[in-house]
Amino acid sequence: MKKPWSGRFKERTAGIVESFTQSISFDSRLWKYDIEGSIAHAAMLGRQGIIPKGDSRRIIRGLKEIEDEIASGTFRFRQDLEDIHMNIETALIRKIGDVGKKLHTARSRNDQVALDIRLYLRDEIGLIGAAVKDLQKRLTEAAERHIDVIMPGYTHLQRAQPVLLSHHLLAYVEMLNRDRERLSETFRRVNVLPLGAAALAGTSLPIDREYVAKLLGFEGVMENSMDAVSDRDFALEFLADASILIMHLSRLSEELVLWSTAEFSFVELPDAFTTGSSIMPQKKNPDVAELIRGKTGRIYGSLISLLTTMKGLPLSYNRDMQEDKIPVFDAVDTVKASLSVLAEMVPRIRFNRERMAGTASDAYATATDVAEYLVRKGMPFREAHEVTGRIVLHCIEKGKRLADLDRGELKSFSPLIEEDIYPYLTAEGSIASRGSRGGTSVTEVRKQITRIKRLLRT
Amino acid sequence: MKKPWSGRFKERTAGIVESFTQSISFDSRLWKYDIEGSIAHAAMLGRQGIIPKGDSRRIIRGLKEIEDEIASGTFRFRQDLEDIHMNIETALIRKIGDVGKKLHTARSRNDQVALDIRLYLRDEIGLIGAAVKDLQKRLTEAAERHIDVIMPGYTHLQRAQPVLLSHHLLAYVEMLNRDRERLSETFRRVNVLPLGAAALAGTSLPIDREYVAKLLGFEGVMENSMDAVSDRDFALEFLADASILIMHLSRLSEELVLWSTAEFSFVELPDAFTTGSSIMPQKKNPDVAELIRGKTGRIYGSLISLLTTMKGLPLSYNRDMQEDKIPVFDAVDTVKASLSVLAEMVPRIRFNRERMAGTASDAYATATDVAEYLVRKGMPFREAHEVTGRIVLHCIEKGKRLADLDRGELKSFSPLIEEDIYPYLTAEGSIASRGSRGGTSVTEVRKQITRIKRLLRT
Amino acid sequence: MKKPWSGRFKERTAGIVESFTQSISFDSRLWKYDIEGSIAHAAMLGRQGIIPKGDSRRIIRGLKEIEDEIASGTFRFRQDLEDIHMNIETALIRKIGDVGKKLHTARSRNDQVALDIRLYLRDEIGLIGAAVKDLQKRLTEAAERHIDVIMPGYTHLQRAQPVLLSHHLLAYVEMLNRDRERLSETFRRVNVLPLGAAALAGTSLPIDREYVAKLLGFEGVMENSMDAVSDRDFALEFLADASILIMHLSRLSEELVLWSTAEFSFVELPDAFTTGSSIMPQKKNPDVAELIRGKTGRIYGSLISLLTTMKGLPLSYNRDMQEDKIPVFDAVDTVKASLSVLAEMVPRIRFNRERMAGTASDAYATATDVAEYLVRKGMPFREAHEVTGRIVLHCIEKGKRLADLDRGELKSFSPLIEEDIYPYLTAEGSIASRGSRGGTSVTEVRKQITRIKRLLRT
Amino acid sequence: MKKPWSGRFKERTAGIVESFTQSISFDSRLWKYDIEGSIAHAAMLGRQGIIPKGDSRRIIRGLKEIEDEIASGTFRFRQDLEDIHMNIETALIRKIGDVGKKLHTARSRNDQVALDIRLYLRDEIGLIGAAVKDLQKRLTEAAERHIDVIMPGYTHLQRAQPVLLSHHLLAYVEMLNRDRERLSETFRRVNVLPLGAAALAGTSLPIDREYVAKLLGFEGVMENSMDAVSDRDFALEFLADASILIMHLSRLSEELVLWSTAEFSFVELPDAFTTGSSIMPQKKNPDVAELIRGKTGRIYGSLISLLTTMKGLPLSYNRDMQEDKIPVFDAVDTVKASLSVLAEMVPRIRFNRERMAGTASDAYATATDVAEYLVRKGMPFREAHEVTGRIVLHCIEKGKRLADLDRGELKSFSPLIEEDIYPYLTAEGSIASRGSRGGTSVTEVRKQITRIKRLLRT
Repeated sequence: MKKPWSGRFKERTAGIVESFTQSISFDSRLWKYDIEGSIAHAAMLGRQGIIPKGDSRRIIRGLKEIEDEIASGTFRFRQDLEDIHMNIETALIRKIGDVGKKLHTARSRNDQVALDIRLYLRDEIGLIGAAVKDLQKRLTEAAERHIDVIMPGYTHLQRAQPVLLSHHLLAYVEMLNRDRERLSETFRRVNVLPLGAAALAGTSLPIDREYVAKLLGFEGVMENSMDAVSDRDFALEFLADASILIMHLSRLSEELVLWSTAEFSFVELPDAFTTGSSIMPQKKNPDVAELIRGKTGRIYGSLISLLTTMKGLPLSYNRDMQEDKIPVFDAVDTVKASLSVLAEMVPRIRFNRERMAGTASDAYATATDVAEYLVRKGMPFREAHEVTGRIVLHCIEKGKRLADLDRGELKSFSPLIEEDIYPYLTAEGSIASRGSRGGTSVTEVRKQITRIKRLLRT
Repeated sequence: MKKPWSGRFKERTAGIVESFTQSISFDSRLWKYDIEGSIAHAAMLGRQGIIPKGDSRRIIRGLKEIEDEIASGTFRFRQDLEDIHMNIETALIRKIGDVGKKLHTARSRNDQVALDIRLYLRDEIGLIGAAVKDLQKRLTEAAERHIDVIMPGYTHLQRAQPVLLSHHLLAYVEMLNRDRERLSETFRRVNVLPLGAAALAGTSLPIDREYVAKLLGFEGVMENSMDAVSDRDFALEFLADASILIMHLSRLSEELVLWSTAEFSFVELPDAFTTGSSIMPQKKNPDVAELIRGKTGRIYGSLISLLTTMKGLPLSYNRDMQEDKIPVFDAVDTVKASLSVLAEMVPRIRFNRERMAGTASDAYATATDVAEYLVRKGMPFREAHEVTGRIVLHCIEKGKRLADLDRGELKSFSPLIEEDIYPYLTAEGSIASRGSRGGTSVTEVRKQITRIKRLLRT
Repeated sequence: MKKPWSGRFKERTAGIVESFTQSISFDSRLWKYDIEGSIAHAAMLGRQGIIPKGDSRRIIRGLKEIEDEIASGTFRFRQDLEDIHMNIETALIRKIGDVGKKLHTARSRNDQVALDIRLYLRDEIGLIGAAVKDLQKRLTEAAERHIDVIMPGYTHLQRAQPVLLSHHLLAYVEMLNRDRERLSETFRRVNVLPLGAAALAGTSLPIDREYVAKLLGFEGVMENSMDAVSDRDFALEFLADASILIMHLSRLSEELVLWSTAEFSFVELPDAFTTGSSIMPQKKNPDVAELIRGKTGRIYGSLISLLTTMKGLPLSYNRDMQEDKIPVFDAVDTVKASLSVLAEMVPRIRFNRERMAGTASDAYATATDVAEYLVRKGMPFREAHEVTGRIVLHCIEKGKRLADLDRGELKSFSPLIEEDIYPYLTAEGSIASRGSRGGTSVTEVRKQITRIKRLLRT
Repeated sequence: MKKPWSGRFKERTAGIVESFTQSISFDSRLWKYDIEGSIAHAAMLGRQGIIPKGDSRRIIRGLKEIEDEIASGTFRFRQDLEDIHMNIETALIRKIGDVGKKLHTARSRNDQVALDIRLYLRDEIGLIGAAVKDLQKRLTEAAERHIDVIMPGYTHLQRAQPVLLSHHLLAYVEMLNRDRERLSETFRRVNVLPLGAAALAGTSLPIDREYVAKLLGFEGVMENSMDAVSDRDFALEFLADASILIMHLSRLSEELVLWSTAEFSFVELPDAFTTGSSIMPQKKNPDVAELIRGKTGRIYGSLISLLTTMKGLPLSYNRDMQEDKIPVFDAVDTVKASLSVLAEMVPRIRFNRERMAGTASDAYATATDVAEYLVRKGMPFREAHEVTGRIVLHCIEKGKRLADLDRGELKSFSPLIEEDIYPYLTAEGSIASRGSRGGTSVTEVRKQITRIKRLLRT
């Protein structure tokens, strides 16, 4: 097969080079976007009189037929045609004859491929945003369903203070909110038309880039043709967004793994979302959570991959940039799959209320409440902290819980301690008292839920 | 020195642990922000009656004295006091007595440190944004000064088509525009108050977080206390922004290195911005550009560092998160220094107009113009491309430039070629014809400059 | 299809979980190694009397039939069977009946998969080592063919001193030597048997691990069963080796890109190893070199991916570790393809001797020779360096080359300069004088070639 | 201050450039190695008659005085002197006069800095290797002290089978063995002399590189001068070794964090190695383990940093390579500190034998033993696995442990089950039966200990 750029070449491309440089094995995924972009381009060429209107119509008709063929699986992609662009253009020419040779007027693969990835990523960011929202909904519903379940809040993975499970779950909803914000900001920078930059310098033909932008639903056009073909910021941004997003999922996954242990026993994962062992018949493993945690590496790797590729590249287009696709495609697939499977799993997790509440009534979990009690009675915080520390040490030595201490014992540490301290020594009392904005009291958590549900409706 | 949390401990911290866990050697940099945050916190405590108004005033006065001491260099930081927070609080208590022990009421180091980094990063993002803008100005001025200098545009580092140097420089201004956008979006997520989350659960004391937010100029408050102390998204985002930004600078640096070679000879860097060799007396090295390119690794490393640290951490605060500071500090310093030195250097670069223009009139640089000429004469683009390829091959064989071909030779490739092709065979003609939006004609580049100058004024 | 571990489960695995957790889509690549390992395992089970000898023989026969089926493409892999292990075991049971159910005796997928990857990587490291050696040969041959071609040696991409092209090419051969060393050291740590660890704790059945190791050609057995199933060091090491290796290739590629520019014009790449432009008919792009440079990112990404995945995993096996395969497979493919295409291309590169030699006779390239001349005449080096610096400045101002200065001019800088300096002012004289070990004189370079050819014979 | 390379320069270096390009703020750490290398170089220069013997002696004496000054803290490093090399050379010239100007004869900063880092890293790899060994000893002693403590072995963080704590700890000793192997292999590639490469091409002066190598204890000399100044493989290798090493420490740290939770309660960390909370008086946090886990990111970041820096650099030396130092220094410090603090902590960890043993006698932990029992009775493994799965399900439904089932119940699942199954249902019986090589029986673990102690003696 003659290459479309073979005019000045005397030798055929070596087979090993053909397979090394081809991208059709992975960029065929862009077919829909390549055709969508070509249709808009052809429409503009016709409208501007750069090619005859009739030619434009024939090209568009041909492209739509190819679209149908690919959609129905009857199209054969060929490696010797290098990439998706040449595969489709060649098919077009075979289908409609020499008129097809006019499609590539006033454009280059450099701006064409930039267009295709932007169209692709625009769609995928939309889908990922929706998947994030879906997971947020499931988490919020789970929070609402378990509004008053008490569990230990942890710092350093040590029990710190009692919190509501709902409050804990909503922390993830907050993280995911930021993920959606970031994605939507990236979207705006993806959603700009590079086409019309041609190879790098623009064209002498009277194209209308704004019209193409309008046809394709872009918010603007790239203002500098050299930048238009050299820029992969939008892909890097997406990979950074995806990295932070999967980092959040890795934290949730870590917690699901921990909570499923015999030691924590906070949750039971549904059989349908766990797998067993080929040798140990009793095992039920939190594979989904482990795999999401493991896949975090894959997305970080994709980010570093493209950052490395782009480092130190002179302007404008360089072939290195072909390496943008695999990391982006892989990150899109990984993030979407991880979000979906979590969204399916979350509503089916059985939270073990009794176990959670039991551990929240840990011997010293309300020590901070004692300190705050003393502050309210007028003791400077640092002193209150120290006094409480001594009370805890006393408890450890006596093998007692804070709530088990009698009034005399308590008073021996400070005369400020009265009968009215007891309510604060229970997990319930502690939680009820945490009424500061964003705190863990039921009232505050309800406010969070209300606010989030409003956000999720938009 | 007794640790402020030593109440329940029976053993002193081991020396090796003290030095392993301390952060004062690097977080002392946050002193200004730590004091700023404490002053706002103390003001709120007094206003809400959580501590007496007089105590609040005494605390604030003490903090301001400490601020002066640190600013004047008379303050001594102590490693046994672990971190900046304890260093300042301890100094406060030493200075104003037991009243100082009330400062830490209703807060924890978990929300305090999150506050400090946010305050720090808010300032630094502002400074970096300004430095980016400054570099944009210098580049735009250089573009304006060299508005009509012609150079070869490259793809694959092969001469592709003539472009304007100004157009090339403005491509970087466009990249930097996106950097500023990203930074300003990150700023909005940095600029939210975490204080009031206390350790993780909020507090039972009647704090007013909105008031603190107002005092400190925050746009909002973190809505979930567990998220408030667990979140480092803002630092990751900043590191991702910085990575993309330095990637842009690495590309510009690569070009400066290339352009300074004897082979390209496009620019002469000022003596004051180059260094020599300890052995080769004739050398003049583009060290600044090389170092910026080299430092790209450092920022990518910082990004991957914090992403790794955050992976799979359960809620809420974990000590691992102390490792957020060094990467952020290093990235801030590296980015600021790189931007400043470039901004100083750019206006002093001498561009070699003759050399640039000469290479732009490369033998076949206007081949695309021939193809577009043929398209305008009615030939389908693919055919035009092929015909031109054959003309180029003919030139290579005959050792001629496109512009050297006589009319007969040209016509032998296509009867469509007429006398009127000659203007398009020069670099000047080629550039003049690239009038598509964002293209490289002087008119289009002037429009870019006007638009950018408007943007930079805001 | 019933899962082999479904005994204790009441629900079927959800479809979404099946597709999320499956690995058959990528680990099917391990089929040959899975069968090889199973055959050795079955042989041992029979020999030890853990299963009857006849059963062992039937299992082995069945496995060999499956091997043939897969090799001939008639085997159908099923996603609902999760992974390569279950696909093959299930096929075995279907083929030979209940006897097949004995194969998995005394092993677990945990040690089985560790075995498979080790067997795979052992083969691939061998192939990559051979490919590295092949590239070394091609580079050495090119060096030998161009033994006396002079070119400018660069530091900071500034011409520094004349060197031999052969010397320059051999620098890459040295780098590749280290790559082979590293790979062979990694090989030794790959080549250790994990099988027999079972799930994590070993087995109560009387297995003989040394026998299996001998059958499979392993140099030793993993000494701790928990380590055996938890360890992925060998994969990380390989990825680190691959990262350093491709970094070397990225440097060579960068040079090929530079040398192919019109500005350098040091090399002409063969048409068969370059591609053209879809819009600019005159272009001939060094795509192969660019893509190798670009793929560097992919390997770095794979390394960081697996490092991230392994971070902080508790013992022993965790499902996260399934994410080891894709980065390893991708790095293997990328490195092998890059090495092969370079090895094919190197012998066909046309070096432009005249252009290289011409630029090596750069105006001041022999400045260091002047300084060393002065040292030989007794001047302290620092003074000699300074004097030479002044001579260079004089040349720049007068627009002369060092070799153009007359004796009077030279003497005016130092009375030590005599007629005998002139030979050192030419590139040839400079090179001839660089006779220190490892230096760029022809004699020294020939020694390097002799030494390398000896190394490559082993 | 005049720069030593200022001969050809007309402008002074800009202040901003001086501070941007200086390295003395971090490479001053190399002073000892810089002097050591210079002494060997000067000795060789004198011996070869390149400089007079007396000059050589005076230089060496001067260098030793400077060494003393730096060691005693009286030496002042100056930023305007750029780097450690120029600081020391300038001091030498100030001290001994013009003779000092002869030191830099036949060398360049390019080979000098490569020498310094190699000398530095050689020492540090030695120290790190010793620290790894020390940690191995502490772990092995802990294993020996707790030889028969039973704990649950985990896969997927689910209790899988009973194992010995000693076996578990020894898995880390195995990992650390591989770390030492890797470090010692890297050492051999570090331990090669680059000096004598001069700037890149060798020198015309009659140096003796083998003599310098001998004086400095190097095993060989770099065979290609261009490679000698361009190579940073040894630093990358070290960073890869360090990354894998800290990954191992991150796993141990993760386990210490988990085991310190109230939920696991497997260990109590010594007060001296934990810290408290500024707000929650009862907290005792495993900070050391958390910080090591967190610092993993820092080392990964350093690795990716230098890999990025080296990507695509043309030969030979480029200033980018100055960025090798900070990642290497930081990784050295981080790894050494992490190893030391762990080695101090490990012997002081209190393992909670009762709790560990109790959880190991988990309801179904010996399910694999039931399956292996059935295999020994002749049942194919897959059937045995399935039967056992049904027994486990029965236990779950009845709320019984495996050991609680009566003979009738057991027999109802398979007639093969006899009275002799009971010993295998206890954790002790299970462990005793795991006698396969590398398995968890006391006998096998003792063999491991013996073997390791032998290794550690060398």
